[in-house]
Amino acid sequence: MFEKEYDVIVVGAGHAGAEAAAAAANLGSRTLLVTMNLQTIGQMSCNPAMGGIAKGQIVREIDALGGYSGVVSDKSAIQFKMLNKSKGPAMWSPRTQNDRMRFAEEWRMALEDTPNVDFYQEMVSGLLVEKGRAVGVKTSLGLEIRSKSVVLTNGTFLNGLIHIGDKQFGGGRAGEKAATGITEQLLQLGFESGRMKTGTPPRVDGRSLDYSLMIPQPGDEVPEKFSYTDTKPLSVQRDCYMTHTSALVHDLLKEGFDRSPMFNGRIKSLGPRYCPSIEDKINRFADKDSHQLFVEPEGWNTVEVYVNGFSTSLPEDVQFKALRSVKGFENVKFFRPGYAIEYDYFPPTQLKHTLETKLINNLYFAGQINGTTGYEEAASQGLMAGINAHLKINGKDDFILKRDEAYIGVLIDDLITKGTEEPYRMFTSRAEYRTLLRQDNADLRLTPKSFEIGLATEDRLKKMEEKALKSNAFVQFFRDTSFKPEDINTILEELDSSKVKQPGKMFKVFSRPRVTMDHMLKLEEVSSYVTENNLDREVLEQAEIQVKYSGYIAKEKNNADKLQRLENIKIPDNFDYSKLKSLSYEAREKLKSIRPVTISQASRISGVSPSDISVLLVYMGR
Amino acid sequence: MFEKEYDVIVVGAGHAGAEAAAAAANLGSRTLLVTMNLQTIGQMSCNPAMGGIAKGQIVREIDALGGYSGVVSDKSAIQFKMLNKSKGPAMWSPRTQNDRMRFAEEWRMALEDTPNVDFYQEMVSGLLVEKGRAVGVKTSLGLEIRSKSVVLTNGTFLNGLIHIGDKQFGGGRAGEKAATGITEQLLQLGFESGRMKTGTPPRVDGRSLDYSLMIPQPGDEVPEKFSYTDTKPLSVQRDCYMTHTSALVHDLLKEGFDRSPMFNGRIKSLGPRYCPSIEDKINRFADKDSHQLFVEPEGWNTVEVYVNGFSTSLPEDVQFKALRSVKGFENVKFFRPGYAIEYDYFPPTQLKHTLETKLINNLYFAGQINGTTGYEEAASQGLMAGINAHLKINGKDDFILKRDEAYIGVLIDDLITKGTEEPYRMFTSRAEYRTLLRQDNADLRLTPKSFEIGLATEDRLKKMEEKALKSNAFVQFFRDTSFKPEDINTILEELDSSKVKQPGKMFKVFSRPRVTMDHMLKLEEVSSYVTENNLDREVLEQAEIQVKYSGYIAKEKNNADKLQRLENIKIPDNFDYSKLKSLSYEAREKLKSIRPVTISQASRISGVSPSDISVLLVYMGR
Ligand SMILES: Cc1cc2nc3c(=O)[nH]c(=O)nc-3n(C[C@H](O)[C@H](O)[C@H](O)COP(=O)(O)OP(=O)(O)OC[C@H]3O[C@@H](n4cnc5c(N)ncnc54)[C@H](O)[C@@H]3O)c2cc1C
Ligand SMILES: Cc1cc2nc3c(=O)[nH]c(=O)nc-3n(C[C@H](O)[C@H](O)[C@H](O)COP(=O)(O)OP(=O)(O)OC[C@H]3O[C@@H](n4cnc5c(N)ncnc54)[C@H](O)[C@@H]3O)c2cc1C
Repeated sequence: MFEKEYDVIVVGAGHAGAEAAAAAANLGSRTLLVTMNLQTIGQMSCNPAMGGIAKGQIVREIDALGGYSGVVSDKSAIQFKMLNKSKGPAMWSPRTQNDRMRFAEEWRMALEDTPNVDFYQEMVSGLLVEKGRAVGVKTSLGLEIRSKSVVLTNGTFLNGLIHIGDKQFGGGRAGEKAATGITEQLLQLGFESGRMKTGTPPRVDGRSLDYSLMIPQPGDEVPEKFSYTDTKPLSVQRDCYMTHTSALVHDLLKEGFDRSPMFNGRIKSLGPRYCPSIEDKINRFADKDSHQLFVEPEGWNTVEVYVNGFSTSLPEDVQFKALRSVKGFENVKFFRPGYAIEYDYFPPTQLKHTLETKLINNLYFAGQINGTTGYEEAASQGLMAGINAHLKINGKDDFILKRDEAYIGVLIDDLITKGTEEPYRMFTSRAEYRTLLRQDNADLRLTPKSFEIGLATEDRLKKMEEKALKSNAFVQFFRDTSFKPEDINTILEELDSSKVKQPGKMFKVFSRPRVTMDHMLKLEEVSSYVTENNLDREVLEQAEIQVKYSGYIAKEKNNADKLQRLENIKIPDNFDYSKLKSLSYEAREKLKSIRPVTISQASRISGVSPSDISVLLVYMGR
Repeated sequence: MFEKEYDVIVVGAGHAGAEAAAAAANLGSRTLLVTMNLQTIGQMSCNPAMGGIAKGQIVREIDALGGYSGVVSDKSAIQFKMLNKSKGPAMWSPRTQNDRMRFAEEWRMALEDTPNVDFYQEMVSGLLVEKGRAVGVKTSLGLEIRSKSVVLTNGTFLNGLIHIGDKQFGGGRAGEKAATGITEQLLQLGFESGRMKTGTPPRVDGRSLDYSLMIPQPGDEVPEKFSYTDTKPLSVQRDCYMTHTSALVHDLLKEGFDRSPMFNGRIKSLGPRYCPSIEDKINRFADKDSHQLFVEPEGWNTVEVYVNGFSTSLPEDVQFKALRSVKGFENVKFFRPGYAIEYDYFPPTQLKHTLETKLINNLYFAGQINGTTGYEEAASQGLMAGINAHLKINGKDDFILKRDEAYIGVLIDDLITKGTEEPYRMFTSRAEYRTLLRQDNADLRLTPKSFEIGLATEDRLKKMEEKALKSNAFVQFFRDTSFKPEDINTILEELDSSKVKQPGKMFKVFSRPRVTMDHMLKLEEVSSYVTENNLDREVLEQAEIQVKYSGYIAKEKNNADKLQRLENIKIPDNFDYSKLKSLSYEAREKLKSIRPVTISQASRISGVSPSDISVLLVYMGR
């Protein structure tokens, strides 16, 4: 009752699955998206927001590659903020609040509008595997659907177990069933699995809150957006609010600690350290008697509100009593309590850079199943798995992003090289080259690559090329054009910057710390260049960054190039580490299990020391 | 963590629960709506449509009473049709196709906008009962929430068991969990329960259909709407399509009959006779080798399509193969297969006219749990249960609609008097007084009653009163005003109706079969009356019906009044039937168990004969 053989079957329609299906289909693969409930495609399980620090960059990268998360986020946004705008552009991070229902609906519509995607609602209970290759899936009703490759994106559903206080019950998310069968089969096939946990705060009734006691958190005055395409920035936005916990709130929460599944040993798995539950925060930062809470609307019209920062699996009565002591929450009513969920994941060191498993050919894992947390992390893996599944069955080269090319490259390289013991979340600090990996240049970095494999459209490429041309030309203009000292000195005086004595190139003064594009635009020649060449905000920003950070950027490029040399030293596929007696025992075991592809990757494996790397280099004749 | 004591707790947020919560809250009760998933409020489990024959009248009645189903349907409609327009106005039945997602969203928004409704997401696993009175609910996480009354509207969720071919699994709807605990407790409390089943057709991918091979089914040219309030009629509509099964399709389906849970005995409970599965139709109407199928879009934009008329629980491969042989479905792709579901219901003879249970005070049942089928049937019961729960805890009189006042009255009286062995669906034939119970006069019939108890708003009442005044005056105008023979004869000639010789009252010619309001409007006096009095379409229609059907209406009113006399003979609450030896054994047993409130209700109980009624009448001294 299905295509005789699909090219790609994607299991699960969360953020990973939705991107995987879109990418494979847009590349031309006949794709089937099987998911437990067609009404929860692109469901946001936790906070109604996309992006943020490092994550916003990932959304921009997904968009630059031709994925959908950016467009969907823009269309369903209710607020936009560029975080870290006071810091250097490497730290600027776009973030939207989203309407949860609209977000899911936009995803569903986007997928319905993608010609090669078919849909099927059912639980997948196992894989079809023949001769070490994934050739389809089995459903819980016993159907077999065949395909050339399979992408698993099961999120938190595999043997999901929900905890609230001392109660626990099976489920993939509140109100949804858990998925069974897949873990069990994968273990039989030789995979290793582990357990992780994550949590979510209570949802409350906005009508019961006193916002006058909280601090409004409006969106940016001039909101931007995620997508490099022509989605519209918001013209109206909804406010969020900030409030705080207090010593009293903490004391009330502590009263429930003996019934906390986190503390009484019932939850054994590790949660996301950087997205901790409120009880975790109280415990770990015992000296702090206040934590921030962000009160986020769940949509344009709904009264449902998300209490960001109050993730918890304490008993409901404890959650409730404590929250009632938070400023503005004195009369709060619950829509539902917070909870924690434990689920199966597969240590991602079992994967290649393409996200294909090492054990089973043409089988890909993406998203939370790989031990990550976050929509953006999931979505980007889905995109990469979808792309690579398509490329492989068409006999084409792998599509791998390097650590100096994309946060997505960092993410995947970290996962498959280092693995992760706790839910992995992206941070700017994980990227060695974060001055290169900015939100403003994801298109410049990635769109040409994606166009080359046939995913990014020509329109997208042209837009990016125009931006590149125009901004490069503008930078060149600053390099070539001299200022008149009398003009520039009025500006410098205002900025309390030392005056210049004789004419020189604009580039030089523009590079001075306090001088911005806005100042330069006061120069007649600059502003007329802008008008004549019809430069938009994006080009101005790009040129400004290129000028002002040229030093840093050049330095990082240089470093990256150096490392690239190690990256270029490939380790043969079936390299026999046991014959290298001078490797440390630990290094040998790790290398054998992870099987790095390059010397550079080997150097990032924890337990592999610089001297181990020397041994390898010597052996490779370098 | 909740109100110390709610006035009303409503369990379940389907059509019954949503109306119950809205009604109780709008009357002033502090109401809590507890449901398993806040994202499925007002979910349409089966076809994306509201109204239809007899059901459309119910939606109009709900609206006239101040319920929300009509408004929600109007706002989410994608097509409107007045069915049976070629028949008399008693048969006119409004029906909308709806956008499934919008429908649920409008319901949720409507409830969020209702001040006294609180929300809570959880499964209710039992009732709190004290001294024979419902005083709250227990949730599956062990919370206890107290209230003065409880309305159960669990739909198909109680021990729901889904069947597809020879496979079966627990669930309340595809992709949703079943609810457990409540049936078990109710049995312990002395209730009787039974099993019923219902089914749904496959959902398919509209992109895979060839509509050029089907017959378009557009909406009405001048679409109307359900609500008497100022919702807008549609200006754009989506088409449905019609196609047919064939002998080949039937043969293909028959190939799966041995694996059909309906035929191999796995499903023991009864399904809705008038909403049969396709296998049922083939079986029961063996001589017909074609059945109509209606191909209905699921919304404005989605490609998902509902195959009305192809409800089935045959194995998926059989469903698929057969559907592929239907014209236009040659390349169909499935979103999900059809399935059947078995669930617990409680024979409704255990209820009073208020839908309160006879066994437990302040406990109400509404919707599918009472053995009915259909959104409209469910919604209307929810409304009535919500109203009566509120009235009772405030010491006010019951709100009961009589059989000559509303389809809702017929529905509830049928249920509690006759019970039902198979899913009960409303038909016009169930109403003795269907000339009185028209869709055009639900406001005239019910809005004043609802205003009296405080539910219908004054605005609504005023609107209705204006319509009544204006249409009555217009009818009076026809009674009072004489025509000029020369004017009317031009019209009569055109209609091939015998000419009049001398002047007379307009009412009389207007009463002639072929003469319509449109004809009357050709008379100068009539059209200027309309302009001067600013009469709208609704008033014209109402006046026309009053004139043209005055005979029928008067006759039915008369009959109803006669029966009203029996209705007025009340049977004392604890009447001891055992002392009436001359009653037949069967009548005595039925009367004891159903405990009718009036002689008239007693007469409608199957097994109670006219001679039994005579015995009762004699005993009552009549
Ligand atoms: C309670 C909770 C709290 C969270 N808290 C945070 C947080 O604080 N911070 C944070 O960054 N992230 C958090 N997350 C994680 C975030 O939701 C995920 O990282 C992200 O949604 C993962 O995307 P995914 O596509 O991998 O999986 P999901 O979004 O979980 O999607 C999985 C999809 O697969 C489907 N599926 C699963 N199994 C099967 C099967 N066998 N057959 C068919 N379909 C199947 C499901 O129906 C679903 O559509 C939380 C998640 C949950 C559930
Ligand atoms: C597969 C299927 C096919 C159908 N086919 C037809 C058809 O062909 N024709 C027709 O007229 N009708 C059909 N129906 C019936 C129609 O959907 C119902 O009559 C109507 O939805 C009943 O409304 P309700 O409010 O009684 O229950 P539902 O709409 O079922 O709503 C029940 C609500 O209660 C909640 N709930 C249940 N138990 C609990 C609990 N313990 N705690 C908290 N919440 C709970 C659920 O989450 C849900 O919100 C079908 C239904 C199904 C499922």
